[in-house]
Amino acid sequence: MSTLRPLDALFEPASIAIVGASENAAKWGGAIAKQALRGGDRRPVHLVNRRGGTILGRAAATSTVAIGEQVGLAVLCVPAATFDEAIDDALAAGARAIVAITAGFGEASQAGLDRQRAAAERVRAAGAMLVGPNCLGLVDNISEVYLSTDSFDRGGVAFLSQSGNLALELGVRLSGRGGGFSRFVSLGNQADITLADLVADCARHQETSAIAVYVEDFADGRAFAEAAAQAVASGKPVVLLTAGGGEASARGALSHTGAMTTSADVIGAVCRDAGIHQVRTPRELVAVLTALGTGRRGAGRRIGLLTDGGGHGALAADALERAGLSVPELSTPLRADLLGALWEQSATANPVDLAGMGEQDPGCYAECTRLLLEAGELDAMLLTGYFGGYSASTDSLGSGPGSLGGGLGAGELAAAGDLAAHYRASGRPLCVQSIYPDSPSARALSEAGIPVFGSVEDAALALSAQCAPPAPGLVPVPAPAAPVGAVDYFAIRTLLTDAGLEFPVAFPATTEAEVRAAAARLAGGPCVLKAVHLLHKSDAGGVALGLSDPDSAAAAWTRMNDSFAGRARYSVERMADLTGGIELIAGVRRDPRFGPVLLIGLGGTVTEVLKDLAFALAPVSFATALELLRSLRAARLFAGVRGRPAVDLNAAAEAVTRLASFAATHPEIAEVEINPLIVHPGGALALDARAVLI
Amino acid sequence: MSTLRPLDALFEPASIAIVGASENAAKWGGAIAKQALRGGDRRPVHLVNRRGGTILGRAAATSTVAIGEQVGLAVLCVPAATFDEAIDDALAAGARAIVAITAGFGEASQAGLDRQRAAAERVRAAGAMLVGPNCLGLVDNISEVYLSTDSFDRGGVAFLSQSGNLALELGVRLSGRGGGFSRFVSLGNQADITLADLVADCARHQETSAIAVYVEDFADGRAFAEAAAQAVASGKPVVLLTAGGGEASARGALSHTGAMTTSADVIGAVCRDAGIHQVRTPRELVAVLTALGTGRRGAGRRIGLLTDGGGHGALAADALERAGLSVPELSTPLRADLLGALWEQSATANPVDLAGMGEQDPGCYAECTRLLLEAGELDAMLLTGYFGGYSASTDSLGSGPGSLGGGLGAGELAAAGDLAAHYRASGRPLCVQSIYPDSPSARALSEAGIPVFGSVEDAALALSAQCAPPAPGLVPVPAPAAPVGAVDYFAIRTLLTDAGLEFPVAFPATTEAEVRAAAARLAGGPCVLKAVHLLHKSDAGGVALGLSDPDSAAAAWTRMNDSFAGRARYSVERMADLTGGIELIAGVRRDPRFGPVLLIGLGGTVTEVLKDLAFALAPVSFATALELLRSLRAARLFAGVRGRPAVDLNAAAEAVTRLASFAATHPEIAEVEINPLIVHPGGALALDARAVLI
Repeated sequence: MSTLRPLDALFEPASIAIVGASENAAKWGGAIAKQALRGGDRRPVHLVNRRGGTILGRAAATSTVAIGEQVGLAVLCVPAATFDEAIDDALAAGARAIVAITAGFGEASQAGLDRQRAAAERVRAAGAMLVGPNCLGLVDNISEVYLSTDSFDRGGVAFLSQSGNLALELGVRLSGRGGGFSRFVSLGNQADITLADLVADCARHQETSAIAVYVEDFADGRAFAEAAAQAVASGKPVVLLTAGGGEASARGALSHTGAMTTSADVIGAVCRDAGIHQVRTPRELVAVLTALGTGRRGAGRRIGLLTDGGGHGALAADALERAGLSVPELSTPLRADLLGALWEQSATANPVDLAGMGEQDPGCYAECTRLLLEAGELDAMLLTGYFGGYSASTDSLGSGPGSLGGGLGAGELAAAGDLAAHYRASGRPLCVQSIYPDSPSARALSEAGIPVFGSVEDAALALSAQCAPPAPGLVPVPAPAAPVGAVDYFAIRTLLTDAGLEFPVAFPATTEAEVRAAAARLAGGPCVLKAVHLLHKSDAGGVALGLSDPDSAAAAWTRMNDSFAGRARYSVERMADLTGGIELIAGVRRDPRFGPVLLIGLGGTVTEVLKDLAFALAPVSFATALELLRSLRAARLFAGVRGRPAVDLNAAAEAVTRLASFAATHPEIAEVEINPLIVHPGGALALDARAVLI
Repeated sequence: MSTLRPLDALFEPASIAIVGASENAAKWGGAIAKQALRGGDRRPVHLVNRRGGTILGRAAATSTVAIGEQVGLAVLCVPAATFDEAIDDALAAGARAIVAITAGFGEASQAGLDRQRAAAERVRAAGAMLVGPNCLGLVDNISEVYLSTDSFDRGGVAFLSQSGNLALELGVRLSGRGGGFSRFVSLGNQADITLADLVADCARHQETSAIAVYVEDFADGRAFAEAAAQAVASGKPVVLLTAGGGEASARGALSHTGAMTTSADVIGAVCRDAGIHQVRTPRELVAVLTALGTGRRGAGRRIGLLTDGGGHGALAADALERAGLSVPELSTPLRADLLGALWEQSATANPVDLAGMGEQDPGCYAECTRLLLEAGELDAMLLTGYFGGYSASTDSLGSGPGSLGGGLGAGELAAAGDLAAHYRASGRPLCVQSIYPDSPSARALSEAGIPVFGSVEDAALALSAQCAPPAPGLVPVPAPAAPVGAVDYFAIRTLLTDAGLEFPVAFPATTEAEVRAAAARLAGGPCVLKAVHLLHKSDAGGVALGLSDPDSAAAAWTRMNDSFAGRARYSVERMADLTGGIELIAGVRRDPRFGPVLLIGLGGTVTEVLKDLAFALAPVSFATALELLRSLRAARLFAGVRGRPAVDLNAAAEAVTRLASFAATHPEIAEVEINPLIVHPGGALALDARAVLI
């Protein structure tokens, strides 16, 4: 964990050396040198080429040391064969930071991975830092450090990426909306400086207002999650664009950066817990950045929807609902107020549909916006459809000779001004979709800071980001407890019982006599015989239920012992009364990037097929555990359906919380699972458990 | 059903009268008159205003009859108060078609609905036809009939819509891609001419290459589905943009057009069965129209993915998979061929990632495209990412002084030409996403007919439309059978048994003695007592299972009879052996727009909560029934999981097919349901049934 590693050596270097500089702009060392020199007024930029000579009009040094003065940051554009030599040369010249463009390391082979690790260690030992290798450089548009082949417009977004071409796409899209990058860092193989370090630094960077991330490999994922949660807490949104873990995209990532990809389930859990906004495409990324850039947030997910056409209203309502927002029916008083600004045929239930009133008086757009933004019953607002058309058009109904005052276009432009004033006054989120996003009226809204989109799906996604619920936050991983020695059935049962989980009474047994004796001790109710040497007992015929006495227990033992050929160990247990119970699965697995990850889900065959699961970084708070249970698709079962009683969901959440804490303090356990965990009206009971050591 | 109603009177009128014409372009009669006169060279356009005078420079007649010659088509822009008079006037002048802009009818009140019905009947009785009322007019860009307030670029798309503003948005979006409308018809309240009539006519319209639809009310939905299926079969794609049936959008539609909306489940089933492409937003509509406009179709869903950046490759792979496509790993021979055009660091597994080779030789884009398009193992191809950047840029790595030949830009443009040639030769679908969709290279691809998008989600959706599986088609609704008299428990059981479904043996009973006698006849296995006067027997405590003899049956009868206070009727039935069985629900409901709709789903409490359901228009073929069962989320259960045996899915499909046919021949039955239908390894058994007459 290095979330407080200062990165000034990277973003505010005293001087820069481009090693492997070239006259040829089609080579890395040529293109980067050309860009770097743009910042030459701010700090010295030296060019290094082992053959010396003149490059881009200036004398090139034959080595970094040969520059003859201390170098702050060295960019290495040399072939892999001379990489180690170039590192040592740069360190000898006093470099505090190295940006390694050179490829052919961890992304290519195990030998390459070993080599990049060794290089990173030499760099760290020298008190310096390394970005890359196999990266495309970095840009700081504020400090004028231009160490990439491309230039990007300046703006408030720090983009941390394992793809250079996605930076180009994001740059183009942000430019189109008047935005740009504060910083762009190509992460490469993250041999030393990782995503987490950069997120932490960008969170402290004054000119960065939002952090956008594209990664295939999260490196120290837990540190990233913590850095991101801190950035979010300090008011800087973090938006993650990531491949969703499909089979083909994982294949692509592996060959692209040698990345160990993380499952989409885990990434989704990390984003929810840390308050990171997750997007799937560059277009979505820009919509969300635009919305979050307003600084406006909705306290809930209730959207007031204003339109001038029923079609746009209906499609927008669906788009909002798909984005997880609601379009509630408005209260009678609010509807009456709206109708005061409208005419009889207007609809006011929500969607609010002017139904032609915009043509009579464009001012009604602004008045309805005011009413919807000020209404206590809504959290945010969407204006969708025609608005912008009157000022865009010189040819249609809008601006005909008979239109009002100075024409509908002028009226609409005035309405845009009023609308912007209401927006400023309200503090609530408002997004706009317009058929005519480049019209004067729509531009006026944009200039007032209102996000305007051409596509309703973008507007809906933008509002969804603004109205996202607050993140539950991360619970720190506790210090490890003393490692456990064994995790066989009775051992893990005991450990979990000590951790506060409830199991039925059970006795170990091997022989028929032991089984009989145990069954006798459990007289008074049916018992269960389990073959505990099996990891998947039920599937292998290793569970016999409803044994009413020692004889039937012994008979079950005989059947199993025959089939397991005498290698079995058993548990004789009190059979739980499952009336009104619901089967859950709860487990914790150690993700190589994110550490302990809790999984909970509905149990039983049908629901296992339906994969009704929820994930969270472990440990979890009780509140998060409860939220996870409630997020299951079948959660309606918990309240009791079709005459069944409600189950004790608090008890299930408590059991899950304890399991997660236990697993988090035992990093030596790769995987622990309770299946089933029965939640019933009177509590939660673990019926079986298994664990695997690392 | 009027799918062959000829509409020449609408689209090729001999002459046109604008009734309610005005000098004021802010009024309907002004704006439409102005547009209509644009077609004045093609056919006479008369203006009618009850006050006469001069309008738009020509003498206005005081009535349609006063024009003094037969009028082909009359557009009514009069107030609702004078609507009926205007209709009669137009019919008296010999009008064969009326387009009614006038509003205030079915969308406003029941009286309005009655009035529009009466008007439509007068029009039909005169041998004429009516579009609207409450419509925004129509445009035929081929025959130069301009009867809307707005003009639209000419193109191959016929847009049939219940929203005028969505026509504006679609028009703007198509224009941006060089496309436009052959026809635009605003459907209004569909008092006479319905969506189905227009779809059928546009399918025959030579200059229409695709039919796009936005509706909130499908009117005669079954006729629409049939007309659309015929259009699709004749090679004209039908794309449906519709509000998805969310609560708020239904509220909006109701106030917008007084529409009776159809549930999203039914619409989805209609689209699948008829081969209609369903989209959710105008942006999606244009992406799909663009793709289908190529005429190219994929035989399957396997996509070859070519990119020049790992990030774009991974995101595109996920976008394709989200769109229901696959990105399969390529065969060893194909990978070897690809590598022949690439360099060592390129990835060839799929995504194919040039990994910088594009900079060495842009020609490799074309060569890889050729290999992927020609490969028998793929159905279509996506090129995503940087392509276009070399020709777009004059400033970055791409076109530096050291670049190849006439610069990378020229190389890329040449590659675009080669790529287009390979596209022409292959016959397979190819879509392109480019960061630089307006670059010379990307434009060259567009001009060669290749769909080029700026956003990868659009490209993925486009390919998904091109690679959609063939529609199962509609099974015609059979002629009604003799209506059934009653559908109480034993009646519907008998009817369904006659239709070929299997039920357990059952005997009706009312008294204890009858129950005892029936149980005695069923000796040899447990039986079941059901209170059959209840529609929801289990929930109301009206089912007793596992009754082993007449005594226990009598005891169950006593308990129930006490609680139902003697009003009950019973069935005593053989209890089925459910070992290895899976509970299904199968039912048919009569949708007011689409007629009989089949629903099937997993049964049981958990799956009911999870709503694992599938829908289809009834009747269905056996193949469709099988497909529906396989489409359930829990379908993996059928094959047997965790040691369970596979069930007889054919028997379930057969039962479902028979149920659907039965219901389709009985329009007097509003709803019939078998719940549960048990499918087990040896067949399918209906355990309970209920039905409701209309």
